[in-house]
Parts: sequence; structure tokens; C-alpha cells
Amino acid sequence: MKLQRIGAAGAERPIVVDGGHAYDLRSLTADIDGDFLAADGIAAVATALGAGRLSRIEVSGERVGAPIARPHAVWCVGMNYAAHAAESGSAPPSTPVVFFKTPNTVIGPYDDVLIPPGSTKTDWEVELAVVIGRRARYLDSVESAMEHIAGYTISNDVSERAFQLEQSGGQWSKGKCCETFNPLGPALVPRDRLDAGNLRLRSFVNGEPRQDSSTADLIFDVGYLVWHLSQYAVLEPGDIVNTGTPAGVALSGRFPYLRDGDVVEVEVEGIGRARQRCLAAARETSPLRA
Amino acid sequence: MKLQRIGAAGAERPIVVDGGHAYDLRSLTADIDGDFLAADGIAAVATALGAGRLSRIEVSGERVGAPIARPHAVWCVGMNYAAHAAESGSAPPSTPVVFFKTPNTVIGPYDDVLIPPGSTKTDWEVELAVVIGRRARYLDSVESAMEHIAGYTISNDVSERAFQLEQSGGQWSKGKCCETFNPLGPALVPRDRLDAGNLRLRSFVNGEPRQDSSTADLIFDVGYLVWHLSQYAVLEPGDIVNTGTPAGVALSGRFPYLRDGDVVEVEVEGIGRARQRCLAAARETSPLRA
Repeated sequence: MKLQRIGAAGAERPIVVDGGHAYDLRSLTADIDGDFLAADGIAAVATALGAGRLSRIEVSGERVGAPIARPHAVWCVGMNYAAHAAESGSAPPSTPVVFFKTPNTVIGPYDDVLIPPGSTKTDWEVELAVVIGRRARYLDSVESAMEHIAGYTISNDVSERAFQLEQSGGQWSKGKCCETFNPLGPALVPRDRLDAGNLRLRSFVNGEPRQDSSTADLIFDVGYLVWHLSQYAVLEPGDIVNTGTPAGVALSGRFPYLRDGDVVEVEVEGIGRARQRCLAAARETSPLRA
Repeated sequence: MKLQRIGAAGAERPIVVDGGHAYDLRSLTADIDGDFLAADGIAAVATALGAGRLSRIEVSGERVGAPIARPHAVWCVGMNYAAHAAESGSAPPSTPVVFFKTPNTVIGPYDDVLIPPGSTKTDWEVELAVVIGRRARYLDSVESAMEHIAGYTISNDVSERAFQLEQSGGQWSKGKCCETFNPLGPALVPRDRLDAGNLRLRSFVNGEPRQDSSTADLIFDVGYLVWHLSQYAVLEPGDIVNTGTPAGVALSGRFPYLRDGDVVEVEVEGIGRARQRCLAAARETSPLRA
């Protein structure tokens, strides 16, 4: 059982895919968003699906959107795999390192990634993305934190390393927020359908392997992250937490940065594979809705 | 002419204050938000006000909300006054330093600020806040950037310094996003009613002076900031840009950090003065809407 949003950007329809078939969710909700998740929408989907109350729908050939409507916040955790910290020239952190992407960076999993004008260091980062299901504030324990997770999806935490590290004064967000820099999806897999503790995650550029690791190597796991973040802020239903990327990015010096025409694929076991073409951004026009 | 939002949290009504009187804006808009600003709502208010088409309204005694509905993003610029950089132990930056607060930190200008459990270093920061009026992407010039500014208001960029600097791995947002950490207001002053280049800004704790500077001392001024940010990301109508704080915060070592019962005031010339009482946060209950 995987939830998706299908259709043109800004006009996506919610569906659930199960047993090889797609079912329309518009009888249950207008969208997959924070309100839907906070109202136990995923349980309602499972019940309706089990009772045969959902209508089959044909979606082949349609655009796949991000599996959740624009979130209130996109939390990002840095250096959360030891080997990636090492390739970036850092020691593994003793506490989660937190920064943000703006919510308008979120695009569909097969949409184009735009390389900013003047960029020479646009990089990929496959990440397990947590989708928050319930408001999280000063949570008591890692165990209770798990109940605030609706499910999981895949982020490509696209990063411009010169913007992030050389033109930033040390605060990373400047290289994380360019338009199109957070392809998300293709699906939201409910928490109870996936053990997030040992999922293989990989990335590819033009079909060649880049990252290949497992969420078992996360320094801070998903439950710990949500618990920890809730001690410093309030996470809202529908928020995304990008949990960090493993070794194998261009920043390591082992691979070239992304160029116009390159194709990036990011995959997390049990969720799926997303694929983005890289295009040079035009200064004058934007593919995003105004 | 100043725009405000009046009423209970989550149910604010838009008004304009002019010549000592308050006028109801509900005939023009349901709220002061990004859509309203992008549709040239402020010009429509000026026209309606000039034509005598707005109804007087009595608002005394009512709560004042943030002057803009929850933004898509709250951009923050660090170390943008040389004397504050010095008191923080840093050299003035050669480029704007950017981090974020989560949008759910925004509260009304007279609402209580909650000191997080375990916090010993909660600090104040008076800032001129820019409100974005038009989508800003790869802007050509500082001059054109000014046309993307709807107006100005006041932020208290409340900061927990241990969270920001000692428990963060160097990325500041962890100490910037606690609930209630962005009192905003009391009013949105349209861009064409205020020269943002030389405004006195001050803060007080329990009536004693703390910060006292001028926006003339900004290292990067408001037009430059919006232009610069637009080279790295897309700013949306209704977004807030906190432009940085001058010297005189507790981090300097010259003043004690905030404690339960303290009262902070933040003032920017031509906009107004906001005032917050500090209270210890209860872990179990939140004043924010669930």
C-alpha cells in the first residue's frame, strides 16, 4: 500500500496503489496533506481499501507529483552517515546537525532538476525522507516519536556545494534552496508497512552507481531524529525530514558534478526509484507556477 | 497607513490604521497573506481608503496578531551589523549569511515568548523584517528587488544560544525555531511609506535599554538582501526576511539572558513597538493551536 499524488503540478489527485492496482482517494480526501495525515487518513485508506470501497483508476502516462502537498517545513539532517561525513572532510557529529530547505523546493520525483545559472557544483543526495503524521512537541521518548511518523518517501536533497560551503559564511541552507532542489517521491509508504531501520538506498548518475548504503548506517535513526527535533521546535503534520545522505556524492571528489543533460536516479528499498533529468535553469523563465 | 491583523490567534481580521482610526479590510480581503500582497492588495487598500470606501472599526482591547498570515518561509540573515558580529566573536561577513526559522515560530507582537525547558541562554534580537510582495527569482538588480518588497515590520528573532551554538554542530537553525520564537508586528508598513535605509531600532528588557542602532548600519541593506537571496532561491509573496540584529544582545556577555517573567520590547522607528512577556514553557501543554 503506497500513497501517491498524480496529475499536473498544483492539480494533483490522491491515489493509493495496492496489489498492482491504483485506486482513487478523492472519496476520502481532496489531497494528501498535513490535515489528512493528522486525521488518521492513512488508517481510513487502509479500511476503505480492505472493504473494497475505493474505485479503480487508470493513471498510466500521467505525471507523478510529490506524495504530499507542500509542507510547512523541510527539515534536513546533515552528516548523518559516518562515511559521508568523512568524504566531506568532517568528523561524525555528536548531535544531529539541522538545516532547512524552503518548502517551494519540493517537486515531483520525475520532474526536471534545474542547475542554477553559474553553478559548477550541483550535487545529488539520496535520502530516506520521513513524513510527519502528528504534531511533535517535546516528545517524551524515541518510542513515542515513532507514532508521530506517518510514513516514508525518498528525497533527492540536491545541493550546490559552492553556494553551500564557499558563498555561505558557513550556514548551509544557501546551497540547498534553489528551485527544484527537492524531488520527492514517488510514493509515501505508511510507517507500519516498512521497517525504516535497514533499507538499502542508492543513487545513480547516467546509469552509473554512485551512493550505495543502508539506513542501518544512520548515525541518528528516524525515531531519534523526530524525538530530538521535537526538543528544539514543533514539527507539523505533513512536514518532511530529510534524514541525511550516505557516501558517494560529487563533493567527495570521486565523481563529477551534475551537468545539463545528466540523469540522476535515487532509490530506497521498499519505496521505489525516482529519476530526474538535469537542465540548465533559464534566468528569465521558471517552470514553477508564479 | 499601517496594516494589522486583529483578533484571536488563527482568527485574525485584516484592518488598516490611518490618521488615528482603524478601518475594516474584510470588504477587500479575508486576510493579509501572500495572495493579497501579490495581487497589489496594498494599492487597493490605499485607493479604498482615499475614496472613503472603508468602514471604521473599533478594535481597542483586542489581541494584535502578526501582520501577515503564516508565511511560506522565514528567511534570516545573520551578522548583518558589524558591531553585533564583533560581540558574537565574528568578523563581519563578506556575503549574507542565511538561515531559517520555521514559519510556525511566528506569533503576535504582544504574545508571550516561551523559554524552552532546560534553556539558560534565551536571547532577544530586534530586527527590521521585510515582507515580500512579489515572487522573487533571479532578479536583475538591487533596484528591481525593491519592487518585490511589500513593506516592513518588526521581528524579535528570539534565539537560544546553547541550542544555536553549542548543541548544533554549527548550523544555527536549531536555536532559532523553538515555539513562539518569532514575535512579529505590530504593523506592516507599506514600502512606499517608509525609507528603510535609516531607521532607529531598539530593544529593552524590563524597561532597561539593550540594543540601540540604525538600519543605516546594516552591512547588506534590504534591497541587496532580496536581490542576493533571489540568486539562490525563490522568495514567495508573504515571506518574511529578518534582516539581522545590531549589538546589545545577551550573547555579548554584557547582559543576562532572559528568564521567566522578563519583559522584552522591540521597536523600529516608523513601525511601532512590540512587547513580549517571557514565560517558562510547560512540556505538556502548548499555547499554540494543535
